[in-house]
Amino acid sequence: MNILVTLDKNYLPPLRVMLGSMFLNNKGTAFDIYVISNDLDQKDMEGLSILCQDNGSRLHSVRIENNTFDGAPTIRYYTKAMYYRLLAADLLPEELDRILYIDPDTLIINSLADIYSTDFKGNLFAAASHSGLLGVSDYVNRIRLSAYEAEGYFNSGVLLMNLTAMRSQVKAQDIFAYAKKNKKQLILPDQDILNALYGHKTLAMDDSIWNYDARYFEGYWLGSQGSKDMDWVMDNTVILHFCGKNKPWSKDYVGFFSALYKHYQRLLGEK
Amino acid sequence: MNILVTLDKNYLPPLRVMLGSMFLNNKGTAFDIYVISNDLDQKDMEGLSILCQDNGSRLHSVRIENNTFDGAPTIRYYTKAMYYRLLAADLLPEELDRILYIDPDTLIINSLADIYSTDFKGNLFAAASHSGLLGVSDYVNRIRLSAYEAEGYFNSGVLLMNLTAMRSQVKAQDIFAYAKKNKKQLILPDQDILNALYGHKTLAMDDSIWNYDARYFEGYWLGSQGSKDMDWVMDNTVILHFCGKNKPWSKDYVGFFSALYKHYQRLLGEK
Repeated sequence: MNILVTLDKNYLPPLRVMLGSMFLNNKGTAFDIYVISNDLDQKDMEGLSILCQDNGSRLHSVRIENNTFDGAPTIRYYTKAMYYRLLAADLLPEELDRILYIDPDTLIINSLADIYSTDFKGNLFAAASHSGLLGVSDYVNRIRLSAYEAEGYFNSGVLLMNLTAMRSQVKAQDIFAYAKKNKKQLILPDQDILNALYGHKTLAMDDSIWNYDARYFEGYWLGSQGSKDMDWVMDNTVILHFCGKNKPWSKDYVGFFSALYKHYQRLLGEK
Repeated sequence: MNILVTLDKNYLPPLRVMLGSMFLNNKGTAFDIYVISNDLDQKDMEGLSILCQDNGSRLHSVRIENNTFDGAPTIRYYTKAMYYRLLAADLLPEELDRILYIDPDTLIINSLADIYSTDFKGNLFAAASHSGLLGVSDYVNRIRLSAYEAEGYFNSGVLLMNLTAMRSQVKAQDIFAYAKKNKKQLILPDQDILNALYGHKTLAMDDSIWNYDARYFEGYWLGSQGSKDMDWVMDNTVILHFCGKNKPWSKDYVGFFSALYKHYQRLLGEK
């Protein structure tokens, strides 16, 4: 199973927790983990490589050539690293046909097998929107980006990529042109571009399974008339996503999954 | 390390989770686990015995002779099983000098070594009160039971027993006489009797470590000016006690430790 992660060095500790939880809850699965990063050093990568090997998996460091992003506009404090995800098909080995991108501020609490084997039905991506929870901002985001054909405003924190289709349809020049033209209205540039340009070619998945926003247990629970209770989450949710500014590895983080996250840190020897 | 549990059959599933969490977080410690129960059958006991053996520990079934509680008054719907804890010193092998009683509605999330080796300082028991959290009811309980000398109203869910001292000082006839005389005002009979008769011979321990009431994360957190945050709990609390009527194995349980409990059930193969 191919997994893609892109990160800065300060996200290395949560990445290790994310990977550890994935290995723990996907015993017997061999992963090929592709890492794109500008500032992880050799020691960081060796540590990740050992973690992968200890769990029957392999780490691959994706090399970014110096001229890969020539002509790419940057937006505010976002570096060119914001394009890694969208242009993954150009950066990854040609023999890969699909890969699952996962943000490092997540826990993988069940098997990824079903998510990974999703039928793309001709789409470029499969992803979940948090629209059931965030109705208003979802609506605002759709208007803002004119993503009228899309089913919602997709969260790009968990993104299954149809690399074969992306190679012929996702073009760096389109992305750079859109970024340049819409510079001022892009709030989360990479996610906004995904939605604006490729939202209509993204298969909508169930966020309560794919990309559960850990801030809103009560929203999922009440919104499902009580059926998505905590037992349901522990049995069915695959990726718990700690969205928002406050992160579960912070001391002052409080939430229904705070104890669980901090337990995983310790169980995995990452704290 | 000697551990005592007393339970009815319906508490077998949580007991297995409690023991599993104890083994997981006390690797390398060999436990002798004494079980007192009226209705666990041979298959239940064999299952527990295998769980213990798999973790380098031993299970001991404590046999209650038919005439052990002759003359013991029963109170409302409480059976004579309510005396097992208080009279443990009479029921357990004579060679044991101390034992740690733990309720089955708990998770053991750190090492029990410090708790177990507590210096009794001449006391019969060591236990924690939830007085910091439940000031009013604590006060009411002390008045009600005239436990004026005690430091608080102790919760008997975690009880370190000085068996040597108990053998000479805790007398069945005293307990039965008190129970008979105060029948009407005993609400939680065993805990009330412990407090009334032996509260002044009970060493007061820190409940946030010994017997953390899982309902009141916010109380501990705010009451400590933020120092007992979730990281503190995960690093320092040893026994998480799911007090109250609603239990974490119920579908509709909601709380800051709900995800953690349900995770342990699954991690330990108990769900």
